[in-house]
Formats: sequence, structure tokens, C-alpha cells
Amino acid sequence: MLTTQIIDSVVRSALAEDAPWGDITSELLIPESATAQAHLVAREPGTFSGGAVFAAAMTAADASIVVELLVVDGDAFSAGDRLASISGPARGVLQAERVALNLVQRMSGIATLTARFVAETAGTRARIVDTRKTTPGLRALERHAVTSGGGHNHRFSLSDAVMAKDNHLAILTADGSDLTTALTRARAALSHTTHLEVEVDRIDQIEPVLAAGVDTIMLDNFSIEELRQGVAIIAGRAIVEASGNVSIDTVRAIAATGVDVISAGALTHSVRSLDLGLDIEVETTQTRGSWQPK
Amino acid sequence: MLTTQIIDSVVRSALAEDAPWGDITSELLIPESATAQAHLVAREPGTFSGGAVFAAAMTAADASIVVELLVVDGDAFSAGDRLASISGPARGVLQAERVALNLVQRMSGIATLTARFVAETAGTRARIVDTRKTTPGLRALERHAVTSGGGHNHRFSLSDAVMAKDNHLAILTADGSDLTTALTRARAALSHTTHLEVEVDRIDQIEPVLAAGVDTIMLDNFSIEELRQGVAIIAGRAIVEASGNVSIDTVRAIAATGVDVISAGALTHSVRSLDLGLDIEVETTQTRGSWQPK
Amino acid sequence: MLTTQIIDSVVRSALAEDAPWGDITSELLIPESATAQAHLVAREPGTFSGGAVFAAAMTAADASIVVELLVVDGDAFSAGDRLASISGPARGVLQAERVALNLVQRMSGIATLTARFVAETAGTRARIVDTRKTTPGLRALERHAVTSGGGHNHRFSLSDAVMAKDNHLAILTADGSDLTTALTRARAALSHTTHLEVEVDRIDQIEPVLAAGVDTIMLDNFSIEELRQGVAIIAGRAIVEASGNVSIDTVRAIAATGVDVISAGALTHSVRSLDLGLDIEVETTQTRGSWQPK
Amino acid sequence: MLTTQIIDSVVRSALAEDAPWGDITSELLIPESATAQAHLVAREPGTFSGGAVFAAAMTAADASIVVELLVVDGDAFSAGDRLASISGPARGVLQAERVALNLVQRMSGIATLTARFVAETAGTRARIVDTRKTTPGLRALERHAVTSGGGHNHRFSLSDAVMAKDNHLAILTADGSDLTTALTRARAALSHTTHLEVEVDRIDQIEPVLAAGVDTIMLDNFSIEELRQGVAIIAGRAIVEASGNVSIDTVRAIAATGVDVISAGALTHSVRSLDLGLDIEVETTQTRGSWQPK
Amino acid sequence: MLTTQIIDSVVRSALAEDAPWGDITSELLIPESATAQAHLVAREPGTFSGGAVFAAAMTAADASIVVELLVVDGDAFSAGDRLASISGPARGVLQAERVALNLVQRMSGIATLTARFVAETAGTRARIVDTRKTTPGLRALERHAVTSGGGHNHRFSLSDAVMAKDNHLAILTADGSDLTTALTRARAALSHTTHLEVEVDRIDQIEPVLAAGVDTIMLDNFSIEELRQGVAIIAGRAIVEASGNVSIDTVRAIAATGVDVISAGALTHSVRSLDLGLDIEVETTQTRGSWQPK
Amino acid sequence: MLTTQIIDSVVRSALAEDAPWGDITSELLIPESATAQAHLVAREPGTFSGGAVFAAAMTAADASIVVELLVVDGDAFSAGDRLASISGPARGVLQAERVALNLVQRMSGIATLTARFVAETAGTRARIVDTRKTTPGLRALERHAVTSGGGHNHRFSLSDAVMAKDNHLAILTADGSDLTTALTRARAALSHTTHLEVEVDRIDQIEPVLAAGVDTIMLDNFSIEELRQGVAIIAGRAIVEASGNVSIDTVRAIAATGVDVISAGALTHSVRSLDLGLDIEVETTQTRGSWQPK
Repeated sequence: MLTTQIIDSVVRSALAEDAPWGDITSELLIPESATAQAHLVAREPGTFSGGAVFAAAMTAADASIVVELLVVDGDAFSAGDRLASISGPARGVLQAERVALNLVQRMSGIATLTARFVAETAGTRARIVDTRKTTPGLRALERHAVTSGGGHNHRFSLSDAVMAKDNHLAILTADGSDLTTALTRARAALSHTTHLEVEVDRIDQIEPVLAAGVDTIMLDNFSIEELRQGVAIIAGRAIVEASGNVSIDTVRAIAATGVDVISAGALTHSVRSLDLGLDIEVETTQTRGSWQPK
Repeated sequence: MLTTQIIDSVVRSALAEDAPWGDITSELLIPESATAQAHLVAREPGTFSGGAVFAAAMTAADASIVVELLVVDGDAFSAGDRLASISGPARGVLQAERVALNLVQRMSGIATLTARFVAETAGTRARIVDTRKTTPGLRALERHAVTSGGGHNHRFSLSDAVMAKDNHLAILTADGSDLTTALTRARAALSHTTHLEVEVDRIDQIEPVLAAGVDTIMLDNFSIEELRQGVAIIAGRAIVEASGNVSIDTVRAIAATGVDVISAGALTHSVRSLDLGLDIEVETTQTRGSWQPK
Repeated sequence: MLTTQIIDSVVRSALAEDAPWGDITSELLIPESATAQAHLVAREPGTFSGGAVFAAAMTAADASIVVELLVVDGDAFSAGDRLASISGPARGVLQAERVALNLVQRMSGIATLTARFVAETAGTRARIVDTRKTTPGLRALERHAVTSGGGHNHRFSLSDAVMAKDNHLAILTADGSDLTTALTRARAALSHTTHLEVEVDRIDQIEPVLAAGVDTIMLDNFSIEELRQGVAIIAGRAIVEASGNVSIDTVRAIAATGVDVISAGALTHSVRSLDLGLDIEVETTQTRGSWQPK
Repeated sequence: MLTTQIIDSVVRSALAEDAPWGDITSELLIPESATAQAHLVAREPGTFSGGAVFAAAMTAADASIVVELLVVDGDAFSAGDRLASISGPARGVLQAERVALNLVQRMSGIATLTARFVAETAGTRARIVDTRKTTPGLRALERHAVTSGGGHNHRFSLSDAVMAKDNHLAILTADGSDLTTALTRARAALSHTTHLEVEVDRIDQIEPVLAAGVDTIMLDNFSIEELRQGVAIIAGRAIVEASGNVSIDTVRAIAATGVDVISAGALTHSVRSLDLGLDIEVETTQTRGSWQPK
Repeated sequence: MLTTQIIDSVVRSALAEDAPWGDITSELLIPESATAQAHLVAREPGTFSGGAVFAAAMTAADASIVVELLVVDGDAFSAGDRLASISGPARGVLQAERVALNLVQRMSGIATLTARFVAETAGTRARIVDTRKTTPGLRALERHAVTSGGGHNHRFSLSDAVMAKDNHLAILTADGSDLTTALTRARAALSHTTHLEVEVDRIDQIEPVLAAGVDTIMLDNFSIEELRQGVAIIAGRAIVEASGNVSIDTVRAIAATGVDVISAGALTHSVRSLDLGLDIEVETTQTRGSWQPK
Repeated sequence: MLTTQIIDSVVRSALAEDAPWGDITSELLIPESATAQAHLVAREPGTFSGGAVFAAAMTAADASIVVELLVVDGDAFSAGDRLASISGPARGVLQAERVALNLVQRMSGIATLTARFVAETAGTRARIVDTRKTTPGLRALERHAVTSGGGHNHRFSLSDAVMAKDNHLAILTADGSDLTTALTRARAALSHTTHLEVEVDRIDQIEPVLAAGVDTIMLDNFSIEELRQGVAIIAGRAIVEASGNVSIDTVRAIAATGVDVISAGALTHSVRSLDLGLDIEVETTQTRGSWQPK
């Protein structure tokens, strides 16, 4: 999911964006031979995600930087914990610092928030899943962060599962077809490996949709009571996904209705970067007077 | 700043990420000839940013989609306001919907937050500026959103201004040089068009730094009282930037100390996407029975 | 599935490969003002696929070339039929000719072969599907060609459905786990939208796999008799896919066993390009002596 | 011809196409520490091509995979022969398997077919050459495969040799110029290193073309008897290339006419992938119960 | 040779290099609605080249800019001549100005220098050709500029003609082979469309090389007298190319020896940009006070 | 400034341009096992620049080539000096030779010319700086070469400093605003880190510009006497840059006027490649008769 190619592509683009023709400060002020020892330190508690991305940002800036990860993705940590140790050429560490932090702070922010949702729903059958409300360009990373927090992923993109929403259903039945017939006909046109999910807004849509043999029914913006009724009607004949108005305050009640899946855009669209910092110590072996700004 | 090339590059990557081999739902369920009328509607009040990006996402999905922007970047709006009108092929509108919203919601979220900081500091000499704590890949968009909210930009990247921080100063003086001499020497090596900013942690660093003729002094994590003293000492000999612990709750007091610039990572690193939605109406002219799922 | 972006990317790469710094023959011998009228003509009967690709290759070579498609993808045609009309600058038509033909001949070859498989299995419940044995770089085009011939698609890639084969099952049970438990555990880790297909080599593997609730069972290299038994055992509890030794000679008997899906690598890995040709007439309005090779 | 850059570019694109966001099956079912031993085995006899490409696909998937090639490009092999040994991380081997096979099977299919053409023409002066009827994106690989089979290459692209065909000749003489004069004039405009080949359809075109001093005359769709006459007329004054209706059944007779070069589109446009397979054994050192699906 | 794709690629890269995130000066100081009228004017006489490149740079900056070329590539002009007229949005014209000039000045510099070499050799059989000593990234443009000046092109790259130099000949005969045998053997391995050129340093190498049937012999660093002898020995059996110490002062004498081709690295490796300028008049229709810097 | 990423990108593009599908000469004539020893030798005296670029071109062609640089960028050398030693596979060295030389010759040509300008102005306060008149695609390399010669850099691009020229000033005051007011207003809109430079053509423009608090005033095409007056008027209130008609003959007099910066387009727009050559010795260990052209 979070392949080496994706990680490399993201960190290289980010480094190029942040230093298109080099870090003029370090080139001016830091001798090429200076080395740095650094630690990634948590300034607040949370759940870690993005270790491989953090390390890749460092080594993309300078291949001789060594990163030792002290936690793995999914680990919880406390304020003050050391999460990784970094050593290598000071110029490279300083150049990568901001990009590496921007990425790991965002990913850990998502993991931490997801973990809260997951904890809220402990003991229920509901899994917490992400949506397509991710940051353009960072979807693979943000989906990975959701799994670090104990969540699951929804479809990756528009290309890999069908989700029929209100507009689609309206069109399908615009010619007077009944919904069951129309959906059955659509399903027949699909690859046998493609998941078919249908979003419904009202309870009376459930039976016609079920009759077409869909894989998942999404109950969109249902009240808690309606969700409970929906679960009862569906009765295991399809996976039940709840969506709409999912927040840390409502998620427990939603989960308690017996739904299988709760999708929450909030996991990725409005995340606070977690406060992680890099404590850096730069060392230069040059003797007094031997070095001057370029 | 927000060039056509950058916008195109971002929206094309985002659309490819979200539909690498097409939107299988629309291809299955929406006739190729169906059209859509849609409106971008504010679900909450805020400050708009990202009109050109929103429109570019739509037209990149289908060049025949027409987008009319009803507000310009920087406009304030109320909940319920229509911000843009969209019409064109339904498949294209549905495919672009999520990407277009993801981008304009994020940008408007940043603009709205920035506008709050700017409003807080009204009547002071301080300008609110962004930092390099932006989303990797979206820096140009997020910096633009800051200006939509009435803020200003800091340096774009590591390549276009020097900012010497604690580590740099430590190295500069590691050979026993005094700071003024070392910074003077460094300045001489710089391009005459390159801005030199130095971050200080203590008041006693100010005079030696000023003596080197720097352009901006950043007072990092100074208390309100220390900021006031710093401004008095500097006395117009350099631009004064305050940074650290800048929040909507503290920014007014910081601005009141007389600093010129307040940089706030919070503008971009932890933004809530503004709640904007797309109300879509799909129309198909096909008569009953004339169309079937592919 | 066959998006504009994919088509553009393929034809532009192909044109660049075939003329990295121009068509030196046309530049030498054809006046810039010469125009061409051309027809895409079938030299043998078949099923058409690739109209949009053919047209895109022409217009990518010169945006002023006009292509009128006289058939749509999926149409059957006879030897001698005109499939498309092309008119525009002669240099552009001549430069695009080979690339446009290479693509449409390959796609129509696949569609034609697929149509033969589909015709062979008429009246059975089996659908003919492709595999990942496609030409590197052309998967989207070749999958589209399969649908032009009346076939269906299997998963697009390793990223969008799980297919557990012998090696995977061996590992899963290497610790002594029983297969049902192991697969059930695996399924729980999957996204709810991800299809789970398991390949079995022996009839006795079917029940343990079914017990884990998989979506599709692939019966690999089963004899006709074994396929029939497999279908009976599975009895609608999962989709049944047959694979291995599928050829135009065997496909009817396989389909008659009652399987739901027959996957055939031969559809794409060993296709004969269909014999389609471009009849071109070049016209120049220049009068005697007015033009000379550059 | 088959440079490292080209190979890398092809295999990386192919791997990305086949697993845009990873191999979800292996990630689900194969422990990261599992290793694989594999052999590339011939299921039918043939001529090998694509060793470097096969190896590059493996190492692009995981740099720690080791591939030992047991044959070199151009070697003939029997059914059952081991062609290569592979060892390394199981996930990487499984991810690369299909791409590596797709490429080496196609290349070996081309080499095997070419070798048959070459064997058919043994003892004649004719060399077998390819055409531009290659798979878009794979031209360099397919041309290399032709040489593995003992064939030679024609021009790489439209950019590196002139080939004047019927349309070009018609234009050249449209102003009433005689063909010799027109071609002589054209030749003068060419780089001295550019090969000039002219295609003729009738014997009476040969002398005027020869008189212009062309490098190669292509006799297109000539009968065997006409080819013999053409060779006699040309009498060594230019290279003689036969093209049109070249198949394994006709190539010997064509070669026997004394032509220098026989170009055959069939070498690349309609190739059957050779049946090569990967026998894989996956090993995991994990003890009972120590590993669970992610 | 100078295809639209190549021109687009060069000008887009150049514009991105020159304004990665926009032209901050124009955005600050020029209203978006301001228009510009401009003329490309010669400040010194010369031969024009690069009209299409100049125009493409303008339209790549803003598609609504209109460029009218008043001369065509290859035209001679005098100081003060207008070479092109440009009109369109002022911001776009100002942004493209430097890139457009950098390219057209360089190309016209090459064309002008080449034209001097060509004029010097008027009346001889020698053609003036370029070498691979071109600016990395701009080879296609610089080769085109050579033809604008009346010169011809040598091989485009290492991939499209063989040139055997001293090191190659030394290796070829390192096993004691005689040169004729070795070259004959090598020629047999080449594509029949590939030009074979051999560089010799001494007159006694000519006969053995000729005996192998090469296409061109390059006489490298021969004196005028040796060139004359070489031409006499070769006597039309191969094309004769002179290279080494070719300057505007020596080229006439070299040409007079009867060689066919004179290659001159100086055409491209050390060119003075021709002095062409853009006279721009910016107009804004905004009334007093209506516009302010952003 | 000259980052690894930029160097890699330039040399890889250049190698691909020079050998899109390999070096057919070396593949034909040089055994794969042959090795080469080579030296980069100065054929004329100069100042070195481009060591890292030269080495990167070699190792990009073949990662096993070893390059030892015997001088560092900025070193002066004499004719005949060895500047670098190269050893490795002969094919790789021969393939990279031309690209590596094209780049290092150009860069050293720029460094050498710059060093002459710097030497001419020794003892004055003036620094010599480059302009945007660089070769498209090579700006970072050419700017680095200027610093190798002892020069300094001007702004990198249109994106990183404001330079207001005549057209901008005309627009600014088109509404009747006085220049000081307009520039002051513009400055307020700029990022605090952005340098503001204004070009003036007449002495009477200096005071109004100074009054707006600009960072640099460029005196464009001023006579020596006018420059002297300008320096006196400005009197340290801004950096003074002289531009226009700067040549090796005029630069000393310009510097003597007391300006701070002299910008010279000639440093990069019309550079003669320095005469550096590669002396190569190829060795093959193959015994007599053991190797034949492919």
C-alpha cells in the first residue's frame, strides 16, 4: 500500500519544492564536513505513523544519513519520548528537517485521531474507515496513517470500486425502471472482482437495493434510530456502512447501532499536525579559524 | 505566484490519483450524454480562496465544463451563499467533484483562518505571514490562500532567503569568532538580492546581530515583555519578526508589542477544511428504456 | 477505464518513440502545405476496437487532422469495409500512420479473438475475462479491447483485489493453522470493498476455502469433470472461475460445466494484429516547379 | 541498443502499471521476512531473449533480489531447461513475477520466431530484418529480441533514415519532374550520414531510382520472378530489400532470389509469447503462531 | 527535425526555470488587464533562426499572445530591421521576454556564424556540417540553426551512425587482425541503413579503410596538402570529410582541397548570442487611481 | 546551489539526448570487458569549473567508472595540466566523453571569463554578477561557474526578487501617481524577505526611487561620469548596480566609479568553450582472435 516507489516520489517532490536550487543558508553557514546528531521527539502524546517516510526524506536529502526508528507505525507514545535517532552530514539533516517533520507530523496526527475513533468504538462490530477526502498527492500516505491508528481503508479511488449515490440512482431510474432491475442490470456489467456499494438516504430504499444483490449499503445521514432499523432490515444480507455527521462525539452511538463500517472524512480532511520536533546538535571538527563562510 | 502551470500540475496529479483508470461508477451508471448543473455552496461562513484551482479541476476532467465563479479569492461569504456555478457533462463533473472540493475546501479553510488572525491584529503594524509548515506538494496553493485571507508570505523555500537559526549561529562561532564578525563575513558572500534573517533566542543576541547589518531579526519564543524590549532595542534598524506560540489567542498581544511580522505555522499545518459542498443535478435526455448500463 | 489521459499518454509516447526528432522523410519530400485524404480499411473481417486511440494518434501528430470514425468499438466488420476517414496535413497523417495502425490493429486483434471466445460460449452462464498477461504499458488499452469483443475484465492490477495462490496458501498454513481460520483472519484485515479470490488446485481445498467466506474460488487447471464437481460443491456460495489451458478449442466445454468466469491469458499475451490498412492519397496544390526538397 | 536507461524505464513503468499502490495480496498474506527461491523454466523449446530485462524487473521490485542468468540472449533451449535462478524477499519476487514473465516471454517469442526465419534462409545472402510494426513503448526491446534470434535491425524510427514510398514519389514528380532528377535533388539536401531507401512497386521504376544514387531499393510486393529480375537489374548498384507477404512459408523462396535484406513485420506485430514459467518456493522462518495477517 | 514537441518541451522547461512560481515583479506592478505591443528588433546584422521557438516561448507564457514573424529562418537582415511583432497581455510578454530572447539570440548567432562559413566556401564542393559539440539539451535547436545558416547536419547522436575513431581502430586490430578484415566484419554486423564513417589520422590508413567499403572517411587534422592527397587517393570511392582546426580563417583553403564535408565544432560550442532586442510598449486602460499594487 | 538533483537531471538528459538508444559505435567495436584510462587535460590555461558535473556524467553513463578530480572548482590551471583522472569500462567512458566535455568546457569557459572580469576590477568595491542571460536549462550550472571564477550571482529567477524596469515604472505612474508613492505602495505588498531593485535610466529618477526605500538601484547604461554622480547621490542609501555595455574593456572604469555591483550578460550569453580534452587509452585483455564485432 505504502510502497517504496510512492514514498520516494513524495519525498523527492517535497524536497524539490522546499529547496529547488539548494538550501542557501546551510551552504553559506555550515561546513560541508559538519555532522549532526538528532532525535525526533514527541512534544505531545499520540500514535506514530510515517517512520518509513521520515527516514526516506532524510536519506533522499543525503544518502549517508542514518536513521534509526525507535518506534514502529501504530505505536502509542508519550510526550517527551524519542521516536527516532538521526545522524549524518549536518547540511543534509538540516535540509530535510522541515519536509520530514511536515510529513511525519501529519501522518501521526491522522493516526492519533483515528486511534481515538477506534478507542471510542471498542467492543462494537464497527470498523472505522477513511474516505476520499484526503490531501491531493498524499492519499497513499494518509490511508496508511489511518491503518496505523487502527482504522481500515475504504476504496482507494474512483477506479477500484463502485459507489452509487443519489445522483446515480436518480439517473438509473429516470427511464421508469425500478431500482432493483436497474441495479441488477448494472451489476451484470461489472467485473466480478468489483465491489458494488450503494448509498441510500431513506429506509424504503434498502429492500430494492438489497434485492439487486449489492455488496455494501451505505446509510447516509441516518439518525441513530434509523441506523438501528436499517441494520435490522439488512440483517446480514449486505455490509452496512454508516456515513455522515461522524465525529468523535457521535461515533460511539453510531457504532452501537450494529453497523459494520463507519466512514469518517474528518480522519483526513481536517487534521491537526501532531507536535513532533527534531532536536539537532551540529558538530564541526574544524579548528579555530579554519573555516569561513563560502 | 499561483501560476497556470502550478495549478494544472496539481489538479492533474490529483485527478490521476483519484481515478487512475477512470471513474468506474459514472462509466457504469451515467450515460455519456448526461449533463449536470451544479453549484458550489457554502455550508458555513468564511473567506474564499482557490477559485482558479476549483475551476481548473473541473475543466481538466472535461474541457467542455463551464465554471462561473461568483466570488473572487479573498471575498467573505455567509453560510448558504453560492460561490460558483458549474455546468457540463455529468461524468466529468462527478469525476472532478471530490478533487475540486478537497482543494477549495482546504484553501478556503486556510484563508478563513488567516482572516481571523488578520482581524485580530487590526490596527497594529504587524503583518501575519506563513511558514514552511505547508503540505508537501501544495505550498504554492497554501501560500496563495494565506494572501486570500489578508496575510503575507514568508520566503518560498530554502533556496530564496537565508534564515540563520541557533544551530547555524553555534557553528558560526564555534571557532571563537564573535557573532558580528562571522555574520558580516557571511553576508559578504551572499548575493546582493538575498535577504538575510537571523533568529535569536535571547535579548543579548540582538545587538551583535544588528551590528552585522542583517535585514530581519526573528525573536523566537520571546515573552510579550521580551518582545517589547526587543522592538525597543532594534528601533527600526531591522525588520522584527515574532515567532513561536502564535495562536488566535495570543496573536493580538504579540502584535501590540510593535513587531513588524508575525509568522504562524498554524495557518497551514493544522487547518480544518471549510465546509463547502457541491449541489449537483444530473439530467439525461434519453427516453425511457433507451439506455442501459454498459 | 480508457480515459483521455491514458490514451494521450500512450499515443504521445508512441509518437515520440517513432519519431524522436521528426519524420525526416516527410520533411524532405512532402511540402508543408500538402494535404492527405485517407481511409482506414479492413483487409480481413473482425471486431473493431481502438477508435478513440486511432483518432488520438492522428490528432496528436497534428491537431488539425480530422478523423471520422465510421464504426464504434465492438462493431463487427467485413474485409474491405471502411472503418474511419481521415483528412488533414499530409505530413501529420504520414507521421502518425504507423503508430495509429500499430495500436488499432493490436486492439482489434484482441477484440476479434475475444469475440470468438464469447461466441463459443454463447448460451452458457460463463463470462470470458482477461488476465494480467497484458503488454507492459498497454494494459488499459488491451482490457478495453477485451470488452469491445464482448469479454469482461478481471482485476486491473495487484493493487485492487486479493488473489491468493498456492504459494500464499502454503505460507498461510505453514504455522499449522487450518486454512479456514487463516483465510478468515486475513479477510478481517482487508478493506470491506476488496474482493477476495482464492485459487485452488484440488477439490478438497474447496470446502475449507468456502468456509472462510471468500468471494471467488478459482479452479486452476481442473479437468472438465473436476470443474463440474467443483461447481456442484460450491453451489452458488461463491463465484466460480476456471483458469488454465483455456483455448478456443477448450472454452466451450469449460463453459458448459457451469462456471461463472473463464479467464484466458491468450486473449492478450499472443495476439495477432488484425490486418487493417490506411489508404492514403496525398495532394499538393503547388504548381510545376514551385517546390523543391528542402 | 538496449541500454540500462531504456530497460529501467520500461520495467519501472510496467511495475507501476501492475501495482500502482502495492501488491495487496502479498502484503496481506506473506510475511515481510519470507524469502523465495525461484527458477525461470522453459515449458517449450525456443531461443532466449530478455535476460537483462527479466533481471531488471526483479531488482526494480526489490533491490536485494539476486538473479543468476543461466543462458545468454540468443541461446537456444529445450523444454524443461532452467534459464535463470532467482532468490530474495518473497514479496518482491511475487510482485515482479508477472511483469518479468510478460517481458521475457514476449522477447523470447520474438527471438524464437526470428530464429525460424533465419534458419529458413540459411545459405542465402539474405538477412532477416524487423520493421516499425513493433509494440508502442517496447520498440528497443523487440528490436533487441530480433537480434537475439539472429536477425538484423532496420532503421529505428522515422528520424534516422529516409524511406521514400509511393506517396512520396507521387508528390516528388507531381510537378512533372522526372524521378531521377527529383531524387538527386532530395539526396543533396540530406545529411551525408543519412541512408536513402526508396520503395518501388514496379520493375520500370528501378533504373530511374538507381540513377539517383540511392542506398537501398525496396522491392515491395514483388513476385518471386520479379524479385529475381530486380536483383539482376540492380546488379549490386544498391542494396536490395524485399518486403510484403513475407512469412515462414515464403521466406526461403524470397531469399533464394538473391535479395540482400528481407523485412518482415510478422517478427513483431503478431508474436506468440513463449511459454516460460516461474517455479517459486516461498520459505518463512517464522515459528508457529508467530505471524498473522496484517 | 525541429518538431513541435521538441520546441514545446524546451520552452516550457526554460520558462519554468526562469519563473518557477511566477514573475513576482509583473504580478506586483503590472495590472492583469494591461496589454503590450512589442517588436523583435535586430541591433546588428545577421541570419535569422528560431522564429518558431521565439513564438512558442511567447504563447507558452500566455496562449493569447499573438506573434507575427516578419522573417523566416534563413533570412539575412540588417541592423534595425524588425523581425517579429508581438501583442498580447503585458504580464505574459514580460515573463517570456528573456527566455524568448535567450533562445532566438543563440540560434541566430549560430545561423549567422554558419552563414559566414558557407559564404567562405562558396563555389567549392564542400558542405559545412555541425558536430556533437552542442549545448546539452538544445541539440535539435542548434542543428536547426546550422541549417538556417546554409549548413548541413552530421549524425544526430551516438545512436544513429557509426563513427570509428583512433581508439576504436586500435581495439579492432589489437588481436593482430588487419584493419580491412576487421572493418569488413564490423560492417556485416551493422543495420543496412546505418552509415559507417571511419576517422583516419594518416594517409596510409586510407586504402585499408576504403577496402572495407566504408561510407565516409574522415581525415582528421590533416594539413592542406595531406587533404589534397587524401582526396586524390579516395577518388570518389567514399565521402571525404575534413575535421580539425576548422575556423573562418582556414575553411576556404580546406574546402579548396576538394573534400565533400567540413565539420566544425566552432559552429555550436562557442557561439556569440546575436544582439536582438525586444522593444516593448505596455498599455493599461485603467483610469487614474483605479489600480493599486496587489 | 548546484545540488546533486540538478546535476543528475542535467547529465541524464544530456546523455539521453546524445545516445537515445545507445552508442552504436562502441557496442559494435569495443568489447564489453575493455577498460579505459583517461585524463582530462587542459589545452589552454584557464579557471576550472564543473568538476562534479564532469564526474556525474561519467558515473551516470556507467556507475563503475571512477573519477578523481585533481583540481577543485575555482582553481587556475595552465595549458597541459591534468585536471582529472578517469578509469573504468571503455564503453561507458567513450559514451560519456562528449557530454562530459561539453559541460565542463562551457563551465570552465564561463569561470575563466569571469575571472578575467574579477581580476580587472581588483581593488575596487565592485562585485561582478551574472544576469538571466543564461543558456535555457543550464542556469544553475552557469551561475555556479560564475562563482568559480570569483563572481557573484544576481537573483536566480523572476520568482525570487523584484526588479522594476522602465516599463514597470511607466505603468506605475500612468495614473498620475508620483513614483515615490507608487513604489512605497508596491513595497508594502511584498514579502518582507523579497529584495526590491529598481532600474533607472536617468539621474533625476534616483531621488524619488530612493525615497521609497528600495534595496538596490540599477543605473542602466549610464556613462562613467553619470555613474560617478549616481554613486555620490545615493551615498550608501541603497546598493548601486551598474549595467549595460559591460565588457572586459570597460569594466575597470565602471568599477572605479564606486558602484557596488556590476552585472554582465556577457559572462554567460556568449561564452567560448574552454579547450579541454580527454586523452583516452583503451585496453582489452582479450587474446588474439577471441573477440569479434557483434
